[in-house]
This record gives sequence, structure tokens and C-alpha cells, in this order.
Amino acid sequence: MRTATLTDVGEIEVQERERPEPTESDVIVEIGACGVCMTDYHMYHGTFAVDTPLVLGHESAGTVVDVGEDVTGLDVGDRVAINPTVPCTNCSYCKRGETHLCENNTSIGGAGETILDGAFAEYVRVPAISVEDIGDLSFENAALAEPLACCIHGVDQVDVELGDSVAIIGAGPIGLLLMQVFRNAGASPIVVSELDPERRELAAELGADAVIDPAESDPLAAIPDAAGGPVDVAAEAIGLVPTIEQANEVTANGGSTLIFGVPDQEATMEVNPFDIFFNEVGYRGSFSLTAEDFERAVTMLRYDRIDADRLVTSRIGLDDLPSAFERMENTEGLKNVVVPHSE
Amino acid sequence: MRTATLTDVGEIEVQERERPEPTESDVIVEIGACGVCMTDYHMYHGTFAVDTPLVLGHESAGTVVDVGEDVTGLDVGDRVAINPTVPCTNCSYCKRGETHLCENNTSIGGAGETILDGAFAEYVRVPAISVEDIGDLSFENAALAEPLACCIHGVDQVDVELGDSVAIIGAGPIGLLLMQVFRNAGASPIVVSELDPERRELAAELGADAVIDPAESDPLAAIPDAAGGPVDVAAEAIGLVPTIEQANEVTANGGSTLIFGVPDQEATMEVNPFDIFFNEVGYRGSFSLTAEDFERAVTMLRYDRIDADRLVTSRIGLDDLPSAFERMENTEGLKNVVVPHSE
Amino acid sequence: MRTATLTDVGEIEVQERERPEPTESDVIVEIGACGVCMTDYHMYHGTFAVDTPLVLGHESAGTVVDVGEDVTGLDVGDRVAINPTVPCTNCSYCKRGETHLCENNTSIGGAGETILDGAFAEYVRVPAISVEDIGDLSFENAALAEPLACCIHGVDQVDVELGDSVAIIGAGPIGLLLMQVFRNAGASPIVVSELDPERRELAAELGADAVIDPAESDPLAAIPDAAGGPVDVAAEAIGLVPTIEQANEVTANGGSTLIFGVPDQEATMEVNPFDIFFNEVGYRGSFSLTAEDFERAVTMLRYDRIDADRLVTSRIGLDDLPSAFERMENTEGLKNVVVPHSE
Amino acid sequence: MRTATLTDVGEIEVQERERPEPTESDVIVEIGACGVCMTDYHMYHGTFAVDTPLVLGHESAGTVVDVGEDVTGLDVGDRVAINPTVPCTNCSYCKRGETHLCENNTSIGGAGETILDGAFAEYVRVPAISVEDIGDLSFENAALAEPLACCIHGVDQVDVELGDSVAIIGAGPIGLLLMQVFRNAGASPIVVSELDPERRELAAELGADAVIDPAESDPLAAIPDAAGGPVDVAAEAIGLVPTIEQANEVTANGGSTLIFGVPDQEATMEVNPFDIFFNEVGYRGSFSLTAEDFERAVTMLRYDRIDADRLVTSRIGLDDLPSAFERMENTEGLKNVVVPHSE
Ligand SMILES: NC(=O)c1ccc[n+]([C@@H]2O[C@H](COP(=O)([O-])OP(=O)(O)OC[C@H]3O[C@@H](n4cnc5c(N)ncnc54)[C@H](OP(=O)(O)O)[C@@H]3O)[C@@H](O)[C@H]2O)c1
Ligand SMILES: NC(=O)c1ccc[n+]([C@@H]2O[C@H](COP(=O)([O-])OP(=O)(O)OC[C@H]3O[C@@H](n4cnc5c(N)ncnc54)[C@H](OP(=O)(O)O)[C@@H]3O)[C@@H](O)[C@H]2O)c1
Ligand SMILES: NC(=O)c1ccc[n+]([C@@H]2O[C@H](COP(=O)([O-])OP(=O)(O)OC[C@H]3O[C@@H](n4cnc5c(N)ncnc54)[C@H](OP(=O)(O)O)[C@@H]3O)[C@@H](O)[C@H]2O)c1
Ligand SMILES: NC(=O)c1ccc[n+]([C@@H]2O[C@H](COP(=O)([O-])OP(=O)(O)OC[C@H]3O[C@@H](n4cnc5c(N)ncnc54)[C@H](OP(=O)(O)O)[C@@H]3O)[C@@H](O)[C@H]2O)c1
Ligand SMILES: [Zn+2]
Ligand SMILES: [Zn+2]
Ligand SMILES: [Zn+2]
Ligand SMILES: [Zn+2]
Repeated sequence: MRTATLTDVGEIEVQERERPEPTESDVIVEIGACGVCMTDYHMYHGTFAVDTPLVLGHESAGTVVDVGEDVTGLDVGDRVAINPTVPCTNCSYCKRGETHLCENNTSIGGAGETILDGAFAEYVRVPAISVEDIGDLSFENAALAEPLACCIHGVDQVDVELGDSVAIIGAGPIGLLLMQVFRNAGASPIVVSELDPERRELAAELGADAVIDPAESDPLAAIPDAAGGPVDVAAEAIGLVPTIEQANEVTANGGSTLIFGVPDQEATMEVNPFDIFFNEVGYRGSFSLTAEDFERAVTMLRYDRIDADRLVTSRIGLDDLPSAFERMENTEGLKNVVVPHSE
Repeated sequence: MRTATLTDVGEIEVQERERPEPTESDVIVEIGACGVCMTDYHMYHGTFAVDTPLVLGHESAGTVVDVGEDVTGLDVGDRVAINPTVPCTNCSYCKRGETHLCENNTSIGGAGETILDGAFAEYVRVPAISVEDIGDLSFENAALAEPLACCIHGVDQVDVELGDSVAIIGAGPIGLLLMQVFRNAGASPIVVSELDPERRELAAELGADAVIDPAESDPLAAIPDAAGGPVDVAAEAIGLVPTIEQANEVTANGGSTLIFGVPDQEATMEVNPFDIFFNEVGYRGSFSLTAEDFERAVTMLRYDRIDADRLVTSRIGLDDLPSAFERMENTEGLKNVVVPHSE
Repeated sequence: MRTATLTDVGEIEVQERERPEPTESDVIVEIGACGVCMTDYHMYHGTFAVDTPLVLGHESAGTVVDVGEDVTGLDVGDRVAINPTVPCTNCSYCKRGETHLCENNTSIGGAGETILDGAFAEYVRVPAISVEDIGDLSFENAALAEPLACCIHGVDQVDVELGDSVAIIGAGPIGLLLMQVFRNAGASPIVVSELDPERRELAAELGADAVIDPAESDPLAAIPDAAGGPVDVAAEAIGLVPTIEQANEVTANGGSTLIFGVPDQEATMEVNPFDIFFNEVGYRGSFSLTAEDFERAVTMLRYDRIDADRLVTSRIGLDDLPSAFERMENTEGLKNVVVPHSE
Repeated sequence: MRTATLTDVGEIEVQERERPEPTESDVIVEIGACGVCMTDYHMYHGTFAVDTPLVLGHESAGTVVDVGEDVTGLDVGDRVAINPTVPCTNCSYCKRGETHLCENNTSIGGAGETILDGAFAEYVRVPAISVEDIGDLSFENAALAEPLACCIHGVDQVDVELGDSVAIIGAGPIGLLLMQVFRNAGASPIVVSELDPERRELAAELGADAVIDPAESDPLAAIPDAAGGPVDVAAEAIGLVPTIEQANEVTANGGSTLIFGVPDQEATMEVNPFDIFFNEVGYRGSFSLTAEDFERAVTMLRYDRIDADRLVTSRIGLDDLPSAFERMENTEGLKNVVVPHSE
């Protein structure tokens, strides 16, 4: 089978490998589509260091082509999405259903202490418990289940209620998904701040009640203006300190600031603890997804709660992965999806 | 001013009365629109006994025309919706924000132990804390804030999460609102069972993933079929025992059956306590609305989260109230709205 | 090894068997203590039908004596409590952490669709994920982890807040545990109704604010009297319809009636749906325990949050199991604990 | 009547004043006891600037001696505790029951934008909705209802579940109350870090599972050691940046750091946003109390869930207030309570 393998920082090689065989509790999935994400980008550029050679790709869906002998409830031919977070099922977090904090921290192609070969490949081996049936959902849309599940996870961190106001800072593929999940959770109104005019426009089309251009108007004034006051939840979906601080400054008393974008590991910010105390403005983080989030994400995609079509702007073969990283660098389009068999 | 006054069972008289004056903490609202509801219907027909003479009408919105001397934050000319539930602010329920269970149980025109004159009138007197600013929302749509708030209340009783499946039995004006609130709360999929073909069609247009005709196919089979299994939440929005039992039978293990329609006070149903224990299927009721629910309802209407236009199918003057009750009897149209100044 | 095997209704035989061997993911535990529970009683008497021969016993703790080859984090000599509910880790319920509703419904010695041999034996084979480290907690007290976890589960079903009033009807071993868990969850006051004078006394000593003798004073009056009004939560811990109805009648508006005792499968009760609607009194059931509940139970026992010593009133050998069932029949003592190596 | 009036920074004068008269919705309470708190201390020393003359004192209880004409449900002779936070009942926060964030921010003797004369006096005027019946609870213990309600509020901010581990840094009167509330909420184990040996000892007697002397052993190691790992909730009850940082460093992944002590308004701390994201460790603040918290606090005191006797270490007359501030400066004893009629 063919894989797009990271062989060194900045080097991706399309290799011919043996198709993996399932152990008793695994299945083999023929990949129909695998999204490209900022984590892949950072692994490629070395800003997130990983051991090589490694096959990346953790936002995938495809068809089951082989099942281990102990596997029940899954058959060859089943169409599935793949949850890259592999729970140990045994640690205290896994027992509580908080599989994203699993002490074993293992991922198929994504971030983790142990990283197994991922889905920028014609086939991938995954535990049977890591797949969800997608019915007749397209592979491209199903490949969004993983980032969507992260967004569901984020929204659940901040207890949104019907009619809560929300601001989202950053409307890349992730901010646009997050916004749609907030909308599905009853947030009202939703204000989005984003530099790129096309993404701003898309945000408005996909459900934002107001969009703001931070290069034109100061978000600290413009967001409360548009939302009728400070917001119950302000989510940052970029990963930068100044925008996290911005989010915090527009959060209403009693509300929450959600750190959803991935900040630099070394970044620091100055916080006033009196404000946290007096205004009861909490900081929450959202990392990755649980098995339950993933199942919910697939359901929401299957019932069309999310406009996935508008987010996938480019389909490429295994050979073209570096071109996706270039487009991401230049804020060109939104989601790049690898279709391994397209060549 | 003119009022449509219930003078006896089945008798409504349009009277000329003195416009009320505000006490220090009240405001006077000139009614722009007031919806007609099943409670009005039952009071009119005597199936819900009330002392007469009484002005009914508890789903209203209008313009502030006079304010009491102690009132702050409200001015003549403000456009407002009126929350008919008057909290005592002093009982244990009110202190918790559960104003719908207030021990004083007072309503402006609606159900309650103490009922004040309501909004089928040109003007109504209400406590200043009972109104919410509606901005430029139309009065007709704002008049839906009260039933919408009840629906928000109902959805909050059952802890819906993103991707939870929901069935709604009965798609009258209330079922259709409830369905839209469930949709806003992330329910997916949503299946609606309703006898009337037009209402079924509208349910589908307003967001139901599947609609079922209970005269054609057995809901006990058809609902799980359409939802991919028993549902996390099954809500009854009619008020009949057989449909409450139906709802319960399609509720999944660990899920909730919501009694939202108003059952007959004397009705009884047979329940198997072992099933409640073993399947952890809970029964929940939802009665009326809180001050917070009302505020959220106005927000959701203002930000277009609910299609209110499609629900208002008839606008009438004070004189025409009995015609509305006839239409309700015959399942003709959906919401009737009284516009007192229309004549 | 020796086992107390149910060979037919009403027949228990102490047998000599081969000690089981662990598969790769199992451990073998030498049983230190195994509590006797109403479920065992019903299986013995045939009121809960099971296939025989079967070794019962699902409230156990002991020492790991053998570990499967794939097992990590557990060693020979570890002292552990055993969670009898075996999750499949794969169904939708297990993924959410709701392992008690697992579609595979497998138990080690307890109620379930599939029942594996239990812990009225010198040794038992269990999956490695089913045990929790107990440190230096005594085996007898650790054997209470399972029923305690059920009680934690029950309390979690009804969202108790600090200062919520609670009534518990029935103070057998389970009611007394449940009461202690409610006390740990902040319930205040707690009123207990129980027929047996010794159990009533113990309830008071273990933390009930008031105890009621239902043979002396009518609980419908006495419970609200003692609690300062109807209670936020009323839990039934017997399993009879009249006491479930009693619990419901003393539940405050907005509160919950918890069905915790196991009702007869065929029992029915008449319920007024208007009351559920109008008073927002919900019915909740609580069945079994989750992996998380079990972990919490072990923690609470280790940190002495529960008085377990007072609940264990009799220690017997494998041969004496029928004597325990007799004591249970006669309301003699509280928990009977089997100590397999005591002979 | 006599009052202890703050006339300038550092100056308290016992004055003879007219007893206030109730407006229609007020009651007059003869103060039985009023606790002295860090807020009084800071107002006295000018580190919390207030307009003078002002009667301080916001932790009080006493006997109703006069009721306004509109007041229902309260009679002369009723024994009550006084909630100093006066809700406007009209703002969005009050409607939600979040009266501590009321936009009008008015307090009787405590911190607020508007401060009314407080309870270091023989009599105080308060709105009827601000008092709770205390039955036969002693005034001294009832005076703890206010700080206890703050602690209930704090514990509710962090969603403690049965068996969650908790660390509390600082065991002054507030830390010791907070600890008891966490214990009532099911926290297990509880580890307390405190400099003063007597307070440490008392913490252990009142329910801490382990106490740590931060002068002897490094809390960053000692707390996880004692708790079996990082804790689910770490609460700071001093108000200093280094101890807030300490609390955060011992918070487990997925857990919460609670800022409960009042930090300096100008203080800042450096925070790593990547950690909040990756470890999902949230920061929460807890400010003041709601009407519901206050009611719960009175209930918990009445049912003896809190050991209040051990916390009140000194009873003084109105003349002796400055001596209390000295004892607080020197960490002598715990709660000082003013008994206005003691002279
Ligand atoms: N929490 C989780 O579990 C999770 C899961 C997946 C991804 N993430 C993270 O989410 C973040 C967003 O991912 P993405 O793929 O959407 O990234 P992206 O494409 O880089 O999107 C970020 C967007 O923010 C805009 N932006 C930059 N500075 C701004 C400012 N000051 N104000 C407003 N907008 C600004 C960018 O515009 P320009 O391009 O014009 O600068 C860009 O459109 C990343 O950090 C990613 O790692 C987190
Ligand atoms: N909980 C609350 O706070 C609250 C607030 C407001 C209203 N409500 C209650 O909500 C209920 C619904 O109000 P509404 O105004 O929507 O009443 P409605 O117009 O009578 O709607 C009920 C609908 O259910 C249909 N229906 C009857 N039997 C059915 C069956 N077996 N299966 C499926 N559908 C069936 C009816 O069709 P046909 O007309 O063809 O029979 C009708 O369209 C009422 O009981 C009302 O009092 C409750
Ligand atoms: N939900 C779960 O997950 C779960 C888990 C474990 C157990 N359970 C169930 O919990 C129930 C209690 O178990 P248990 O071992 O404690 O049983 P138990 O020993 O039979 O206790 C029941 C107690 O209730 C008393 N009682 C009977 N009628 C009463 C009345 N009218 N008013 C007040 N008290 C009355 C009995 O007194 P007398 O003996 O004098 O009649 C007895 O002391 C059982 O149904 C059991 O199966 C449920
Ligand atoms: N959130 C709210 O709503 C609310 C309500 C009431 C009070 N508060 C605040 O709660 C805080 C505590 O009040 P309090 O009356 O208990 O104050 P306190 O008497 O000053 O208690 C603080 C305790 O912390 C100890 N301490 C100081 N440094 C320490 C360290 N590094 N490690 C461990 N312990 C240390 C102190 O010991 P030494 O005295 O020996 O230094 C003292 O015993 C104050 O900031 C108060 O304003 C908040
Ligand atoms: Zn794990
Ligand atoms: Zn009230
Ligand atoms: Zn399962
Ligand atoms: Zn307010």
C-alpha cells in the first residue's frame, strides 16, 4: 500500500509498504479521506517534534476491509469514521469517560505520547472500538468528525445555555466548526472576529449574527457592541496570547473564557487574579475529544447539523501533502482533504 | 380602554373600562399583540374554572405608556414583552430563581392561584420586573416569548446534549415551538409524530428530521425506526395518557420522558416501577416558565433562532376571540393573535 | 478450590473445583470477603431465575494471586475490590462511561444477561479493568464497595445540593448506606422511615436527623413534619409499591422521587401525570453502578467517609451461606459477609 | 441606639443614634451577634476605601423588633440571620438567581458599590427578603451564615463530586469553613496547608484527612503525596499570588483551581495558556453569595453540618472592635463576634 510518510522535518515521502494485518481486536480500514490539520502542519515543520519515520493523518474515514477474529458488530464493507485517540480503558480518566486525558495518551497519527501510524495512507490499522458507523455520509464529510468532536468537547467545557451570547476569535476551519457547534448548542447571539475577509463572509453565511474585522475596529469595543454587552462565553480559536487576552476582556461577569486554539508551549500571559475572583470569570481549556464526543460528532454530521461541504476546499492525493501545508501557511481555502486512492 | 372580558363560562364581552394606573413599581403597557392559548380555551370553556369577570390573555407584548414613580430603567415608548408569572421574590423558590414554582403563584391573565387581569385588552398593568425589552421585534412575534419560554423550560428539564435523539408527540403550536427549541439545543435526530398533515409538513420544514403519521404507522415502531433506536428524550405535547405512555415506550434506557402537554387533572396512568429502576427511564414534568427562561426566549426571538412567522396564522380584534377558540377546536391554523388596536 | 455453588433453586453445594487460569487480560483474585445481598437471596429462592450451576457472590475483595500476560499496573499481592459489572467498552453506553447500561450486560456473580461465576469461592477470575486497589482497607469493608457504588450512583441520579432535604424509606443495609452517601453529598436534613427499631436506632447514630416508625406515625405527615416540609428528594430503598407512592407523596414541588429498592418485575402503580407536570416532581430510577462509581466508592471507604464496620454483622464460611439467607428473611442483623478461607 | 461607626481610616467611634424605622418592605432587627471579617479589617485600615461615616458589620443575626406595613410572613420576635447582599430583583443576574453579580451591587455593611449601614449596632434596618428564619440556632452561630454561604458558593463553582480530592491552602476562619463545606460535599480526601500550628490542628479535628506545614515541607510535593496524586480541586483561601500558583500546580488534569481568598486588586500572576489548554485545568473565582446560598447556609447550621462553635473564639462589645482587628493581625484565635447588648 502507499503511505505519505514523514521521514524528517519538512520531508514527506510517498512509500510503498505492506498493508497491516489486524490483531484479534483490530480492524483494517481503507482510507476514503483524511483531513489535514494544524497538528500535521506543526509535525511537518518540526514545531511539534515527533520521531520519524511516521505516517501522519488523524482526521479520517473509510471502509472496513478486514476484521480481527474477536471483533463483533463490524463487518467488511462497513463505512466508518476513525477516532484517533486510543483509550486504555483502564486508567481513572478512561473509567470516567474522559478518554482525552487517558494516562496512556496514545494517538493514531495525531498528537500523543505514543503515536501510531496514521491515515495519510491507503490503509490503516485501528482498534475496533475506535470506529463509528457513518451510514452513507461521504468520506470527506466524515473526515471532519474528529475536529468536530474537538469542538463539541470545547462547547461542553463552558456549559452554554439557550440564549447565551458567544464570541469566537479566529474563523479558520476550526473556528468555523466551533461556531457551528455553538449555534447548535443554542448560543445567541454569536459574534465572530476574523482577519480574513472570505472567512468572515463564510462565518456570517454559516450562522454568525455579526462578524468583525479586527484590523478595522477594536474587538474590545466591537464585540460587546454587536452582542449587546460582554459575552457569556468568549472562545479563542487561534492560539495566540493577545487574542486570548482579548477574549477574556470581552467575557461577562460570571462567564467563561475558552482557550481552544493551541498556544505555544512556552507562551505566558499576565492575569489579574482579583478579576477572576471578583467577576467570576473562569478560564477553561479544551483538549482533544472523548469517545462520546466522537460518536456525537458523527451523529451531527449524519443529520446535517453542520455544513461540512463549505469547509472542504481542496482534495489532493498522497503526493500533494506539501501543497496543503503551503495553502495553510497562506490562509488559502479552508480544509485540505487527502484522498489516497485519487491517483 | 376596551377589554375582552370573560364574564361567565363561554361568555366573552368586550367592555369599556378605565385604563389602569401604575402603582410605584408598575408600568402600563399598551398591548400590541396577545396570543391565544389552550389555557384561555379551557378557561373559556370552563374546563379550567376561574372567577369571573376576568380579562384573560397572557402571551403579550406592547409599548410602555406609563411608569410608576419608583421604576428605573424603563421609559415611556419602550417596546416590551410581558412575562405573566409574577414572582413574590421572597419564597424559597423565588430565591433560587425557580419563579415558576413560587408559593404565591400569581399570574397576569394566565393560570395561577391569584389571577390578575390580562392582556386581551388595550392596556395592562404589570410590575416593572415582568417586562423584557424586545428592541425592534414585531409585537406578534414577541407575543410568542411566553410559550417559547415554557418550551425552553421544558428542554432544560431533560438535559439534552449535542447529538441526543428526541421524539415529540403532537405538533400543535406548542409542539412546533418545542421542536425548534430542541433543535436549538443540539438534538439530533428529531422525530415528530402528529395527526394533522399540514402540521406534519410544517414540522419537517421547521427542522424535524422525520415526521410520522400515527394513523398510518405505529409510533412504537416508527419512531425508533426513524431515530435509529429508542430516543434519549421523548416529549409529549398534547396532554393525553395514551401518548404519554407512547412517549415512555420509545424512551431509551437512561433517557427521559417529558410530560409537557397538560393532562387532565383526574387522569391516571399505570406505570411499572421496575422499568423505571432497571432502565433508568425518568419521568419529568415541565410547568410554566421562569424569569430567566423568559429573558432567554426574548433573546432567541430577537436573534431569529425561532421561526415565529410561520406559527402565527391568524390576527384578530378583541371582538373575535370566540372565533379563535373555534379554530383551535377544529385544528385550523396554528397561533391566533389578538391585536387590540386593530379595530 | 472450594466454591459455594447454586445447583438448583434453594440448593447450594460446596464444591471442589479447579482454580481458574487468567486469560491474557484477566487476573485471579483470592477472595478475602464477599458480602451477601438481596440479589443472591432472590437467585437462591428462584424469585430471580438463573441458569445453574452458578457460583453467586458479587460484593467482593481479595488479593491478586495471578495476572494475565498483557496486564499492566497490577501485581501478585495487590489488595483489590472487584467491580462485578463487566463493560464491553464498545457500546454507546460504555463509551459515555454509563457502563451500568452496557448493551452486553455481563456480571461476575450478579444480575445480568450473562452471568459469570462469582465470588462465593476461594478464587475468582476477573478482567484486570474490573479491580480497584484498596490499599490497607480490610477485605470486609472493601466488600461493601459494590453496594456503596450503587448508592453513589443513586445519589448522583437526583442532583442533591448542599442543604437539600432528603427522606429515605427503608433502612436495611442498603438504606443505611444510601443515607450515609446522601449525608456525604450535603443533604440536610435527612429523615429515615423504617419498621425495625434497631435499624432505626442505627440510622440515627449514622447520621439521620430524624427517624420515623411507620407503624406508629403516618409517614405522609411525619416526614414533612420532621423535615420542615416536603423533601427535595425522597428515596425508596425497599422495593414495594406502597412505599414508592409514599416517597412520591412527600416529595416537594420541583423535587425527585428515587426508585432505589428493586420492585417486583410485574408490579404496577397508578400515577397522576398532571401532578408530574404541575408540580415538576420527577421519577428517577437507579440501577447498578458504573466503573467511576466503583472507584469513588473505594475512595470513600479508604478515607472513612462511610461507617462500614457497623453494617457488617455476621461473618460466615462458604458452608454457611443458607444461614445468611435465613437471617435476611428474619431481618436479623445487617450485612452477612462470606470469608471463604475462614474454615 | 448604639453603633460602632467607622468615622475615618483607623477610627471607630461608638455613637448614640436614632433607631431606624422600617419602610413598608423592611424589618428592623435587634442584633444578637455580628462577626468580624477581613473585609471589615480592610475597611478599617483603609486598604479597602469606603465613604465615612459608615457602620460596618455584615455577618449578623438577631431578633425582628419591627416590621414594615407590606411585610408578610415575618413577625416581631422572629429570630433571623441577615443576608447583607441586597438584590435589585430586576437585573439579568438577579432574574437568574445570581444575586451576587447584581448590577446594583448593594450591601448592608459589606463590600459593594452602595453600602448601607451595617450590623455593628444595636439595631439594623434590612429588606424583609434579606432575612432567614434561624429557629433556635444561637445568634453567634447564625452570624456565620454569611461566610458559610460564601463557602457554599465557592464549592458550587467547582462541581465537586463524591470522592473528588481537594486541597485547601490557608486555614483561617474562612479556610476552615470552606474545608467543612467541601467535606459536606463529599470531597475525599481533603488536604489542608496552613502555617499556624493551632489552625492546622483544628483543621485535622474538623475533618481534614491530612494537614501540611508549608514551612516544613514543600506543598508542591506534600499535597500530592498526601492526596495520592494531584487534586481534583485546589482552593486558595488566603489571597496571595504565590499560594494561588501553588494551588494551580497541584491541580490534576481536568480539575479546577479556585481563587477564594481575595487577592490584591493590583496583583498579577503569570499563567501558561498551553497548560490550561492541554491539561484542561480551569481557573474559577468565587465572589460573595446568592440568596439561595444563604438559605442553604442557615439550613446547614441548623442541622449541625458545620462545627461553628469551634470557630468563634472571642465575644466582644461594640467598644472593643479595634481589639478584634489586632487579634486578626496577629493570627490570634479565629472568629471575633460582636455582641452589641453585651455591655
Ligand atoms: N482544542 C482542540 O482540541 C483543537 C483541535 C483542533 C485544532 N485546534 C487549534 O485551533 C486553532 C485554529 O485552527 P485552524 O485550523 O482554524 O487555524 P487557522 O486556519 O490558522 O485559523 C486561524 C484564523 O485566525 C485568524 N486570525 C489571526 N489573528 C487574528 C486576530 N488577531 N483576530 C482575529 N482573527 C485572527 C487567521 O487569519 P489569517 O490567516 O489571515 O492570519 C486565521 O483565519 C489552532 O491553534 C489549532 O491547533 C484545537
Ligand atoms: N408545559 C407547559 O408549560 C405548557 C405551556 C403551553 C402549553 N402547554 C400544553 O401543550 C399542549 C399542546 O398545546 P397546543 O396549543 O400545541 O395544542 P394543540 O393545538 O391541541 O396540539 C396538539 C396536537 O396533537 C395532535 N394529536 C392529537 N392526538 C395525537 C396523537 N395520538 N398522536 C400525534 N398527534 C396527536 C393534534 O392533532 P389533531 O388536532 O388533529 O387532533 C394537535 O395537532 C396543551 O396541552 C397545552 O396546554 C404546556
Ligand atoms: N438500586 C440498586 O442498584 C440496588 C443495589 C442494591 C440493593 N438494591 C435494593 O435495595 C433494597 C433494599 O435492600 P436491603 O438489603 O437494605 O433490604 P432489606 O434488608 O430488606 O431492607 C428493607 C428495610 O425496609 C424495611 N421496611 C419494610 N417495609 C417498610 C415500610 N413500610 N416502611 C419503612 N420501612 C419498611 C424493612 O423492615 P422489616 O425487615 O422489619 O420489614 C427492612 O428493614 C432491595 O430491594 C435491594 O434489592 C438496589
Ligand atoms: N470568596 C469570598 O466570597 C470570601 C468570603 C470571605 C472571605 N474571603 C477571603 O478569604 C481569605 C481568608 O480569610 P480568613 O479570614 O480565613 O483570613 P486569615 O485569618 O488571614 O487566614 C489565612 C490563613 O492562611 C495562612 N497562610 C498564610 N500564608 C500561607 C501559606 N503560604 N501557606 C499556607 N497558609 C498560609 C495564614 O497563616 P498566618 O496567619 O500564620 O500567616 C492564615 O492562618 C481572605 O482573603 C478573605 O478576604 C473570601
Ligand atoms: Zn486511559
Ligand atoms: Zn415566590
Ligand atoms: Zn458496553
Ligand atoms: Zn440585580
